[in-house]
Amino acid sequence: MSHNTFGHLFRVTTWGESHGPAIGCVVDGCPPLIPLSEADLQPWLDRRKPGGSRFVTQRRESDTARILSGVFDDGPESGMGPVTTGAPIAIQIDNEDARSKDYGDIARAFRPGHADYTYQAKYGVRDHRGGGRSSARETALRVAAGAVARKVLGEAVRIRAGVVQLGPHRIAPEAVDFDAVYDNALFAASAEVVPAWEAYLDGVRKAGSSIGAVVALEVTGVPAGWGAPVYGKLDADLAAAMMSINAVKGVEIGVGFGAAELSGEANADAMRLGEDGRPVFLSNHAGGVLGGISTGQPLTARVAFKPTSSILTPGQTITRDGTEIEVSTRGRHDPCVALRGVPVVEAMAACVLADAMLRHRAQVG
Amino acid sequence: MSHNTFGHLFRVTTWGESHGPAIGCVVDGCPPLIPLSEADLQPWLDRRKPGGSRFVTQRRESDTARILSGVFDDGPESGMGPVTTGAPIAIQIDNEDARSKDYGDIARAFRPGHADYTYQAKYGVRDHRGGGRSSARETALRVAAGAVARKVLGEAVRIRAGVVQLGPHRIAPEAVDFDAVYDNALFAASAEVVPAWEAYLDGVRKAGSSIGAVVALEVTGVPAGWGAPVYGKLDADLAAAMMSINAVKGVEIGVGFGAAELSGEANADAMRLGEDGRPVFLSNHAGGVLGGISTGQPLTARVAFKPTSSILTPGQTITRDGTEIEVSTRGRHDPCVALRGVPVVEAMAACVLADAMLRHRAQVG
Amino acid sequence: MSHNTFGHLFRVTTWGESHGPAIGCVVDGCPPLIPLSEADLQPWLDRRKPGGSRFVTQRRESDTARILSGVFDDGPESGMGPVTTGAPIAIQIDNEDARSKDYGDIARAFRPGHADYTYQAKYGVRDHRGGGRSSARETALRVAAGAVARKVLGEAVRIRAGVVQLGPHRIAPEAVDFDAVYDNALFAASAEVVPAWEAYLDGVRKAGSSIGAVVALEVTGVPAGWGAPVYGKLDADLAAAMMSINAVKGVEIGVGFGAAELSGEANADAMRLGEDGRPVFLSNHAGGVLGGISTGQPLTARVAFKPTSSILTPGQTITRDGTEIEVSTRGRHDPCVALRGVPVVEAMAACVLADAMLRHRAQVG
Amino acid sequence: MSHNTFGHLFRVTTWGESHGPAIGCVVDGCPPLIPLSEADLQPWLDRRKPGGSRFVTQRRESDTARILSGVFDDGPESGMGPVTTGAPIAIQIDNEDARSKDYGDIARAFRPGHADYTYQAKYGVRDHRGGGRSSARETALRVAAGAVARKVLGEAVRIRAGVVQLGPHRIAPEAVDFDAVYDNALFAASAEVVPAWEAYLDGVRKAGSSIGAVVALEVTGVPAGWGAPVYGKLDADLAAAMMSINAVKGVEIGVGFGAAELSGEANADAMRLGEDGRPVFLSNHAGGVLGGISTGQPLTARVAFKPTSSILTPGQTITRDGTEIEVSTRGRHDPCVALRGVPVVEAMAACVLADAMLRHRAQVG
Repeated sequence: MSHNTFGHLFRVTTWGESHGPAIGCVVDGCPPLIPLSEADLQPWLDRRKPGGSRFVTQRRESDTARILSGVFDDGPESGMGPVTTGAPIAIQIDNEDARSKDYGDIARAFRPGHADYTYQAKYGVRDHRGGGRSSARETALRVAAGAVARKVLGEAVRIRAGVVQLGPHRIAPEAVDFDAVYDNALFAASAEVVPAWEAYLDGVRKAGSSIGAVVALEVTGVPAGWGAPVYGKLDADLAAAMMSINAVKGVEIGVGFGAAELSGEANADAMRLGEDGRPVFLSNHAGGVLGGISTGQPLTARVAFKPTSSILTPGQTITRDGTEIEVSTRGRHDPCVALRGVPVVEAMAACVLADAMLRHRAQVG
Repeated sequence: MSHNTFGHLFRVTTWGESHGPAIGCVVDGCPPLIPLSEADLQPWLDRRKPGGSRFVTQRRESDTARILSGVFDDGPESGMGPVTTGAPIAIQIDNEDARSKDYGDIARAFRPGHADYTYQAKYGVRDHRGGGRSSARETALRVAAGAVARKVLGEAVRIRAGVVQLGPHRIAPEAVDFDAVYDNALFAASAEVVPAWEAYLDGVRKAGSSIGAVVALEVTGVPAGWGAPVYGKLDADLAAAMMSINAVKGVEIGVGFGAAELSGEANADAMRLGEDGRPVFLSNHAGGVLGGISTGQPLTARVAFKPTSSILTPGQTITRDGTEIEVSTRGRHDPCVALRGVPVVEAMAACVLADAMLRHRAQVG
Repeated sequence: MSHNTFGHLFRVTTWGESHGPAIGCVVDGCPPLIPLSEADLQPWLDRRKPGGSRFVTQRRESDTARILSGVFDDGPESGMGPVTTGAPIAIQIDNEDARSKDYGDIARAFRPGHADYTYQAKYGVRDHRGGGRSSARETALRVAAGAVARKVLGEAVRIRAGVVQLGPHRIAPEAVDFDAVYDNALFAASAEVVPAWEAYLDGVRKAGSSIGAVVALEVTGVPAGWGAPVYGKLDADLAAAMMSINAVKGVEIGVGFGAAELSGEANADAMRLGEDGRPVFLSNHAGGVLGGISTGQPLTARVAFKPTSSILTPGQTITRDGTEIEVSTRGRHDPCVALRGVPVVEAMAACVLADAMLRHRAQVG
Repeated sequence: MSHNTFGHLFRVTTWGESHGPAIGCVVDGCPPLIPLSEADLQPWLDRRKPGGSRFVTQRRESDTARILSGVFDDGPESGMGPVTTGAPIAIQIDNEDARSKDYGDIARAFRPGHADYTYQAKYGVRDHRGGGRSSARETALRVAAGAVARKVLGEAVRIRAGVVQLGPHRIAPEAVDFDAVYDNALFAASAEVVPAWEAYLDGVRKAGSSIGAVVALEVTGVPAGWGAPVYGKLDADLAAAMMSINAVKGVEIGVGFGAAELSGEANADAMRLGEDGRPVFLSNHAGGVLGGISTGQPLTARVAFKPTSSILTPGQTITRDGTEIEVSTRGRHDPCVALRGVPVVEAMAACVLADAMLRHRAQVG
């Protein structure tokens, strides 16, 4: 139940503040004998790391992850190279470009849309430097842990996400192409929309504004049977995982809110026998989950991100001393936080699924 | 992490199948000295119980809850009447009208849209009688536990939900009136829509069909500071709680998916000082949560329910022996499962909040 | 972390007070397809049940366990008979002989050695009837859950316990014979001591007094590899399980406190290769656990029980109103609570091991 | 349930191997606004650190703890200095003197009495360098976390431990003086025994042997009411905490195994009213716990440590390739591991009690 721990058997505990010396995580419960080194983490971290394009924050962080425990190379005769040992895997990333001065003038103000006020209200103190613990910088560790989770899941489970709506602009469901995502700076799930979306987001960025977005997720290769009734539902775990990502305000599985407008006939996914004698679903409104347990179809979900709250336009707020002021954010920020949210959505899905896999194996063998 | 347990400090464990002898729950972690008797549970259960109108299943269950432990009346001199003792509270409801024969012909078929296939795939066996463990009958216990949670929260926290969308028919946000909910058989959050909605749902019902819906939730009286970073976020817990309810496919907090279309300026809720010197938000797009911690504003959420999968129209499916068949459901069912979902949504919110209250008290005092 | 829940993957939640209408437990996380019916529980319960001899309390309880959920008989064609379904297993035992009047005069007194004072101090209220929640009656449910755990473990794992010390009288380690335990009313691990011990305990009983004892535990058939570092150690889990049993004041693994007097040479269990090419230990001072992980040798432990605190000799105490009084216990009690503790020790060991088995399978496969 | 996490609300997760780059822990759930800096940790770490006398390992580690997160200094105007923020506190200690070559020749052998064999059997791989994860080096982090726990508990709760038995030599209960413990290199709870014990342990040390010991614990200032029935018993949590310490084989609370020889009359602690109108116990056989809940008396426990398994005398064992060999340990080790266990016992008690305090506050307020 740890507030800074996620998962039950594949457990991730994160720590660290945006402008502290470092951030880190401990991945506990990982099966042993899985080949793992920093090289397995870095490509995923690079996708999330700041400074990669003009559409993301210009903070300069190499986001170089070091593994400090839980991996061991038993030498040349073992022939295994570095593998997990079953012990907790500590991963650490130094903070390299923490310009606390950027935030000095807002140390006492509660930035609208940020967690400044609620942290102060809850704890009576807050590390205001760069948002402290509430900064999206914490999500780098989710990506690192997600990279470990992917190794646990193996290559049969393929986890992909991408931006399918940017403000008012949407990609039609039939046009969604996850293969396009990491080929464009917007992580858009369609190559076609990129020029128009870039122009749109340039406008937002130059105005010092920000915009919300929707990220779609698709996971293939999950066998039928993962997840569990009734409070351990796979979709409930996914929902919590997604909603725990900074700026997320909505989650839907399969057709989601669209199911509210469907009749029972239209919604239920009919089943037939496939050529290999295995069940085949004729549609996937359920998004790959029935009764909280995976059906073997692709897991599909959509995640709504609110716009970055850090904007140049001054907003009304108060200070912790009770003074009414206007505040704008001069720090370095993302015009659309959902972009870098794409690898985070993937990583959280990976963590949920690795946990579900181990839990399933525990009970059912 | 128990699959059939919900919550961390205010913990609810449920058990029982739709057509077994009884269903029950154990509420553990409840503070002591809270007045509690069966009379505190029954009104909430009555709202969810079947048979109350033509729009819900005609299964006849009194849903009479008995408290078997954890409550003690120390006699007349104490003057307290029955109060919680801090020990686990066991609540039990007998199944009175379990017509297993209704389901006999579908014991081997996987009903489309139901959890039949996934339970079989996971466990290699399933209690098919009335859906067994996957039946929405389990939610009666959530309502019972939610009634205990309400007592823990006290009267200052007011939890209300109602149907705001029935298939294609919506209640405009500004017309939502939670006071109307329990005065109509549709649990609609507006008296005005009732005649039209009743006619609509009668049509659905007579056609042996079903329809989805959206339930809105509003909680007032939650102080600023409940919830916790980063995996213990109040909205993440709410999302998991809602998504664990049978038939739920989507959850959004505050403006939810609408946030994807908003600019940072439009989305961030400005703050001013109220007349009493306390912070006041000028809007509530955040739905009462920032950084996973309550702001003191009303908590608002919306929950999408899919249509009941039990319908009279035959649907294509297979049996567990691998035969392709068509199946329809002749049992007693709800044309719109979201209706009886309204008290369940309220109850889950109550459980999440009681847990959050205790967790906050633990860490912050 | 639930205060009334034990275990992580094989989880037991108990509820109920000594003189309430019933007591019960919910066993969650049990693997599916395990044959299980009430007949599997009753023999173990009968060993613990009161009234079996003059050496245990004369309260008359049949301790008849009913299974209310989680088990399903899929009919004659399945050929399986009743099996677990993976859903939570609810077990219930009615209280049949709750003579609350026996305790009426001590409703306000804090009986020395009992939990009366501490429950009152913690909760501000206590169900004094027969000790309420703190009564050893709760342990019947541990025995029921332990019976389920034994089915999970299978017959290769053999769990046996017995009394090896009764007050000042000890059975020499080399004379311990667990096969003798259930053939004598004292659960003594040696047939030879029975006549003398019976005479001794008759004296204690007739004097209205009580005496402490030590129960030894031996588990064979546990493979090497169960348990986990560093806070999930198998011996740490065993220690917590044993110490959670009413009246237990000490736990030792292997040579236990004796290890404090040993040199490193004398203590370390040497290893050789067995005839089958598998490792063999030449001694078992470790009690079958090294570094918190099972070695494949027998698990051995010893558990110290204090004497029953309910005695006829008046003892000095106070009432909750602050009056100094003398109190004696006229209710029905055990002259040596450790006797009926023997099946409870076995049951807790079974629960710990079933949980360890599932946890091992989860991480290592 | 995390294998490398301890506690429920005050939660400690540790990571790191004996000869890796560093070891660390994350303390989550700590209340905010508690003054905390490295200076609060170091004195306790210095007590446990190696190299302090000829009676402990000569490994040279400064055991300098760095706090990397969860503590913030809000500047001069706040006047608070560095305080906890409610966010997870990451603590890290570099490994400075990891001479892996010392262990090179035993990389393949299973040292008798060590966890080498069980780790290999469980995981199929082990980090053999200095014992890897199973090394007692991990306990440095427990001491660091315990230092934080002491701050949570405040000065009213006084936690002291000391060696009361060294091999065959015992300190009589009435002679135990915890004030003497940190004034002698043996952490003996009596100044008088020191010369004789030093001579004895010098003999053990020079023989390349080792010896077991018993550590006693006393905690004063715990109010009545901490702990909880029935699986959250304070003594059960203490037992698990102590048994999780490397080399511990036995735990007893109060009179412990001595209770097995006592009559009910002799064991039960009588109660009277104190001059201040509060209850007073006339003895403390219970060790400050009844029914799993603290009585307000001193918590007393005794913990048995086995002798260090690393000795110079060659012992019979096998290699992981199945060869029978003899092995001795030439590395740097403690002749009596219990000595440095004293601050670890104190630290684990502090963590258990901080957790119990928060859990009590959560449920009872």
